[in-house]
Amino acid sequence: MLRIPYNDLQAALDQAMQRLGLTPDRAALSARLFAETTRDGVYTHGLNRFPRFAAMVQNGCIDVHAEPTRTAAFGAIERWDGHRGLGNLNAYAVMHRTIALAREHGIGAVALANTNHWMRGGTYGWLAAEAGLFALCWSNTLPNLPAWGTATPTVGNNPLVIALPREQHPVVLDMAMSQFSYGTLAAYSKRGTPLPVPGGFDAVGTLTTDAAAIEATQRALPIGYWKGSGLSLVLDMMAAMLSGGLATHQLGSEPLREAGQSQFFLAIDPANLAPAGELTHIADEVIANLHNTAPLDPAAPLRYPGEQTLRLREENLRLGVPVDEDVWHQLNHPTK
Amino acid sequence: MLRIPYNDLQAALDQAMQRLGLTPDRAALSARLFAETTRDGVYTHGLNRFPRFAAMVQNGCIDVHAEPTRTAAFGAIERWDGHRGLGNLNAYAVMHRTIALAREHGIGAVALANTNHWMRGGTYGWLAAEAGLFALCWSNTLPNLPAWGTATPTVGNNPLVIALPREQHPVVLDMAMSQFSYGTLAAYSKRGTPLPVPGGFDAVGTLTTDAAAIEATQRALPIGYWKGSGLSLVLDMMAAMLSGGLATHQLGSEPLREAGQSQFFLAIDPANLAPAGELTHIADEVIANLHNTAPLDPAAPLRYPGEQTLRLREENLRLGVPVDEDVWHQLNHPTK
Repeated sequence: MLRIPYNDLQAALDQAMQRLGLTPDRAALSARLFAETTRDGVYTHGLNRFPRFAAMVQNGCIDVHAEPTRTAAFGAIERWDGHRGLGNLNAYAVMHRTIALAREHGIGAVALANTNHWMRGGTYGWLAAEAGLFALCWSNTLPNLPAWGTATPTVGNNPLVIALPREQHPVVLDMAMSQFSYGTLAAYSKRGTPLPVPGGFDAVGTLTTDAAAIEATQRALPIGYWKGSGLSLVLDMMAAMLSGGLATHQLGSEPLREAGQSQFFLAIDPANLAPAGELTHIADEVIANLHNTAPLDPAAPLRYPGEQTLRLREENLRLGVPVDEDVWHQLNHPTK
Repeated sequence: MLRIPYNDLQAALDQAMQRLGLTPDRAALSARLFAETTRDGVYTHGLNRFPRFAAMVQNGCIDVHAEPTRTAAFGAIERWDGHRGLGNLNAYAVMHRTIALAREHGIGAVALANTNHWMRGGTYGWLAAEAGLFALCWSNTLPNLPAWGTATPTVGNNPLVIALPREQHPVVLDMAMSQFSYGTLAAYSKRGTPLPVPGGFDAVGTLTTDAAAIEATQRALPIGYWKGSGLSLVLDMMAAMLSGGLATHQLGSEPLREAGQSQFFLAIDPANLAPAGELTHIADEVIANLHNTAPLDPAAPLRYPGEQTLRLREENLRLGVPVDEDVWHQLNHPTK
């Protein structure tokens, strides 16, 4: 692992985006969103995800020139079509539109069809929360998780983001519906250490903490077993129905061809409902109560969602952003 | 267990509500919501919950005359105060208001402070979905679940409801943030059978399927461990902040004094975004795919959330609604 200055990471990604054919302003924004993701410690969906993203531009699944357009509107809710453009640029544009609707109507929503992987979902939550709004958004994915009661991947791990404004320190939950991602399972099986809690089923159908056994069966667990399975299904249905786009079962089975996702974005502007101080006070008291709760491990105080992000962001800006040497080298020395 | 005609159950509840001091129209509606809950197979939150509800009227936590009032409004979002009235009547009124906002603006939301337990959360999801709308709503509760990383109850099991319209067969997810309710744990420990999956921690801090051991430690599990813990926290914060009401940590520790909950209601009317046939088609294809997936147990085909409700509703209307003999006798022969 190497640590590099944040600006160098962003600049290298910007160059790489331009080589993929993005116009300079779009390259700059997309590069910033990728770089911020790594800066914030979500290493799976920043720089490390770039090679797969580039491959999907090259195989035609992602159209670098496509921009989202509105296809229907009524009051505070709209439908947009992402035209298979860049997932992060589409989601960024649509969350901005959702925020504008919320500022006008108190609450606003956009359902986005025909887009691509949005990379870190939390990005759009932070965007809204830093602007003083609540946000709730989710994406469907290809079927990568057996629904409860089957061994066949049927539902997506459909990331769900809930963000709350709170002056300097927003609360941002960004969670997938699987207990562990396949990336996490791979890391545990490589190290040969057991998972902290059961993460799926082994070959004889027993719950296990053996990551390699779960990789072999592909029977990862939805959070809360039948509960996460049901939640994943309704998030998929709601995104597809409201956007008029594809549902999980239509997104194929090949990660490099996973294109055309449906997403849902919601924002609430509390500015005209209550004084900001009232909301901050309520939030601060909940967090103070959490922080004052005795932890099982005195060295591991309780944290709210997003709390670790701020610590990692500060550390990575100060010490340099950690990057995988191979991926970093590949980014700076493209073979074509 | 006894089976009684649905109309008899509703009539007996109506009488009991009037004895508690409700006006006839409010008694009739509240009785219907309780009776429908038992009819639909959610036995924990219908008739069986009535004695606890009655005790909370008698101890002054629930004001049978209070009706919710609007305290702030901007565009498509409003704040209401429940004045510690009946939880089901407050939630019913507020979901109706949310639906009206959604019909006018495409999407609408109401945050409700100072209310009481809404009984079956799914009731308000069915209400919206049967009117052709999507709904999303949740409630906070008193702290009844240790957050991840502590043995102390810190977060609520905060039920979350997501409902999707679909002609005769809405999809309604109604789930709490705990893997098992204390009612379910009690049923397993009484029977002496292990839980189907780990449901909490035993006295030495090991994950266990022993329900009695979890009852002893009170360390039940949030769904998905740290994930459900985080989700529960943000749902609580969002309901309290938007409504200006109480958060979980302010709701005490005594179930018979759990009053003043904060709730959030959201509805989306798709009627002006897309033809109803398009949405139904998308939903039907997702459900067909689910039903066509090979189950692990050929006798247990995969189900969508709410599918079992329809079967139980039909069965209970046909054969009579199952009631606990003691609770039924008590309802019909009040001691005071």
